[in-house]
Amino acid sequence: MSDSTAMTRRALLLGVGAAGGAGAMFAAMGALGLAPDAQEKAFVPPQPSDFALRGRGAAKVVVLGAGVAGLTCAYELGKAGYDCTVLEAADRVGGRNLTLRAGDRLTEKDGETQTAEFGEGTYFNAGPGRIAQWMVTMDYCRELGVPIETFVNNNASAYVYTRGMTAPARARTARADLYGYVAELLAKATDAGALNRRLTKDDRERLAEFLRRFGDIGPDLTYRGSTRRGFETYPGVTGGVPVGAPPSLSDVLAAGTGRALTMDFGYEQAMPMFQPVGGMDAIVTALVRAVGRDRIKTGARVTGLKNLPDGVEVAYQGGTIRADYCVATLPPHLLARLPHNLGAPITAALRTPVPVAAGKIGLEYGRRWWEIDDRIYGGITETDLDITHIWYPSHGYHSGSGLVVGYYNTEENAHLYGELSHRDRRSRALTQGKKIHGEKYRTELRSSVSIAWQRQPHIEGGWVYWPSHQGAFTLLQRPAGRVYFAGDWLTHLIAWQAGAMESARKAVTELHRRVLQTSS
Amino acid sequence: MSDSTAMTRRALLLGVGAAGGAGAMFAAMGALGLAPDAQEKAFVPPQPSDFALRGRGAAKVVVLGAGVAGLTCAYELGKAGYDCTVLEAADRVGGRNLTLRAGDRLTEKDGETQTAEFGEGTYFNAGPGRIAQWMVTMDYCRELGVPIETFVNNNASAYVYTRGMTAPARARTARADLYGYVAELLAKATDAGALNRRLTKDDRERLAEFLRRFGDIGPDLTYRGSTRRGFETYPGVTGGVPVGAPPSLSDVLAAGTGRALTMDFGYEQAMPMFQPVGGMDAIVTALVRAVGRDRIKTGARVTGLKNLPDGVEVAYQGGTIRADYCVATLPPHLLARLPHNLGAPITAALRTPVPVAAGKIGLEYGRRWWEIDDRIYGGITETDLDITHIWYPSHGYHSGSGLVVGYYNTEENAHLYGELSHRDRRSRALTQGKKIHGEKYRTELRSSVSIAWQRQPHIEGGWVYWPSHQGAFTLLQRPAGRVYFAGDWLTHLIAWQAGAMESARKAVTELHRRVLQTSS
Repeated sequence: MSDSTAMTRRALLLGVGAAGGAGAMFAAMGALGLAPDAQEKAFVPPQPSDFALRGRGAAKVVVLGAGVAGLTCAYELGKAGYDCTVLEAADRVGGRNLTLRAGDRLTEKDGETQTAEFGEGTYFNAGPGRIAQWMVTMDYCRELGVPIETFVNNNASAYVYTRGMTAPARARTARADLYGYVAELLAKATDAGALNRRLTKDDRERLAEFLRRFGDIGPDLTYRGSTRRGFETYPGVTGGVPVGAPPSLSDVLAAGTGRALTMDFGYEQAMPMFQPVGGMDAIVTALVRAVGRDRIKTGARVTGLKNLPDGVEVAYQGGTIRADYCVATLPPHLLARLPHNLGAPITAALRTPVPVAAGKIGLEYGRRWWEIDDRIYGGITETDLDITHIWYPSHGYHSGSGLVVGYYNTEENAHLYGELSHRDRRSRALTQGKKIHGEKYRTELRSSVSIAWQRQPHIEGGWVYWPSHQGAFTLLQRPAGRVYFAGDWLTHLIAWQAGAMESARKAVTELHRRVLQTSS
Repeated sequence: MSDSTAMTRRALLLGVGAAGGAGAMFAAMGALGLAPDAQEKAFVPPQPSDFALRGRGAAKVVVLGAGVAGLTCAYELGKAGYDCTVLEAADRVGGRNLTLRAGDRLTEKDGETQTAEFGEGTYFNAGPGRIAQWMVTMDYCRELGVPIETFVNNNASAYVYTRGMTAPARARTARADLYGYVAELLAKATDAGALNRRLTKDDRERLAEFLRRFGDIGPDLTYRGSTRRGFETYPGVTGGVPVGAPPSLSDVLAAGTGRALTMDFGYEQAMPMFQPVGGMDAIVTALVRAVGRDRIKTGARVTGLKNLPDGVEVAYQGGTIRADYCVATLPPHLLARLPHNLGAPITAALRTPVPVAAGKIGLEYGRRWWEIDDRIYGGITETDLDITHIWYPSHGYHSGSGLVVGYYNTEENAHLYGELSHRDRRSRALTQGKKIHGEKYRTELRSSVSIAWQRQPHIEGGWVYWPSHQGAFTLLQRPAGRVYFAGDWLTHLIAWQAGAMESARKAVTELHRRVLQTSS
């Protein structure tokens, strides 16, 4: 269908809708061949208007929560012609997609309020910080015109530090040693005939060739170190000064660097990853612009939710709203506490997923010492200290300042930090990070902000985990009357914005199909 | 020393220099304590003026070649007060640092001329394309204000394709399978006691734990595939559809993907890498601005080089120039052909390094199908086809068009392509790439440009290799009379801009020390 034809048909339908109500509109759509195929299950990669072209709905929808799930619902429903209102308890939009900049205030449930005192241009992605290539988040960035840049999730020059090590090592060094010894062990076992029953002669030769590449082992199959370990002085006019001989095999195994080295092997964390230019909330800003800021009520905490025979009624701080349908995207543990008439099984289901604590601290420095002194440009230092990770920024390279994430931890460690005042979190994070980066890690600090997601009002958790994907998880995939549920918590992409978006797409697809079927 | 003191001293010295010549200036410098420490060997990380503060030289220097080595020489000498002239045979500056944009013409030694017909905003780094974190190139970008961004050198979503495979596989899939089977083989050999003499019980337990992480093998130590292989449909609301079971161990080994999977294990190629925003020639542009365009004569092919008792004389197309010193940065095989009076051993030394052929083709597409269809954002597909690599762009994500490097090959393969017309190179590259990406690789092509560095006038090679770092290599590190040599070819960083820069720093440091010592 050409654009002009589409315009004509849409103009016609809008006219019908305005004159004859939704029923007349949907009848006309069927006549024009625009009603969606009920068998159609999956979204095609989004292009502007893909969703809208499958038919338009005139129903009124109230969306609970202006996080990524809620905003995606309102955006997709809006494209399809729905009249949406989004209710958000906080005085800001975005939910866990939170980017803090100079002057931003962050209040915790017990009342402590921090104010970010960052310099111009510094930002802190307090929530999600990275996107995988295959995630639908990338499509929304493309569709909404949110510029993206590479997020460095793994850096051979970053450090690995475990309590089994006497000093931090570069990731490249730890990797060279582990791979070197693994190659040696397997090459020698193969050479000694230990695998002759499993491997043909061709297999053994090919394996040996791979192991030489993989471990950089010598012709005698022994690992003695390698230029892959890095250099004290890198090659230039001269051949460079390598960092020296590797520790013994026992010491390398005892260091326990395996978790750090394999952290990006999975499908969620593999390199490269991506981030919006200027802060993760660029996605929120673009969604809000597309939805229309006037459709979003902030400071509107929901206090009651009722299914009615012909619609829903939502009470909130400041009023009551009636609509044809509701999509509830609040965290399940908050929905479970909301007075509603959806029935006890729904409440029980909402109580099933377990909130997980998660915390981060943003440490702003007036000098990018990690680039200048350590030659680390982006990436993550992995450690078994309670800070778990140190993230270096993947943007603003070579600029005058920058923000390091001094911890990003979950569960026990997140509770440990979360129970401290910001001052004490900072102090603890600096004490730990100093073990890796030395005194400058403390002395050069300019400002900091920390977040404990389990203590964030209206959110109360980093994410949830499900004891099982049966039962409650399945029940909440279906609407309770006219109330649909959506959020990353209803997917297999928990803690990812892509989960929120995929769940939103599923909910609005089903809602839309129902509207079209009801109306035709 | 405060800035104002420095200003006063410098003003004084400049006055002395103007009135009394270089000798008087250097004598005054010694009196002021500014003469450099002769023991000082290495550069500190560059900061504006670091070099200049060690003393100023008033000598006249002619630099042969306006590639990265030549420009770095002129830049550093200029900061230290030298009067430099750069002679460049081509009608453009930059040497192998060559970025092609719409309208740029590229002529080869046999006379074929291509004109880039790229769209607005498309560029093709025909020469160097990436920078490692530890390289001095990064420091020059910082010092000269050249913005940098991440270059994706390794992408789990890119493909691996060898003639041992029936179809291309994602790098993540090939890696999961090789690592999975390696883990299985070593875990089982360990479990069967084959390593009991080498490993303690603690070692074996730690190794087993690492291998479980490394290979994602089951409790029975068997590799049966893993979500690390990727998905037909990635997880979302549902758990996703994995890509299926792995090939047999024999088939995985026969596929020969080891080279592809280990390509970034070394210190030169490890992730992350970097590139200047907008094209590699941003470095050249910044150097030229700092040197002063008026100091560079293009179209000035050098035709003779003479050491004189008190200076050097350089004949070039268009004139003759006399100077106190010369830094020759042309490729050694071209310097060897230049009439000179430096002696037969110098000619023999210059003939020792062997030029290496290297070629690239830039394929511009009007649709970023690798992002939209393949979900590949940057990175490199590795193959044993004669194209060797396919590079996807690490910038312009989600924009309307983009440029893929359709081959980047060397030696035999580069000769093979280099001997073809551009039309035939393109045809061959498309035929090969089509095996990986299908018909769109050919049908969606918009424009293309190819380069065979061995056929580039005034360059005649991608880079060189040295049969040995003794003899000729060592001889050319020293000046021949008043002629110094510099270039990546005189380093252990051949084919990297950092090599050119390091060599330039060495040459001008030695030249400067000589000037100061001669004059004091």
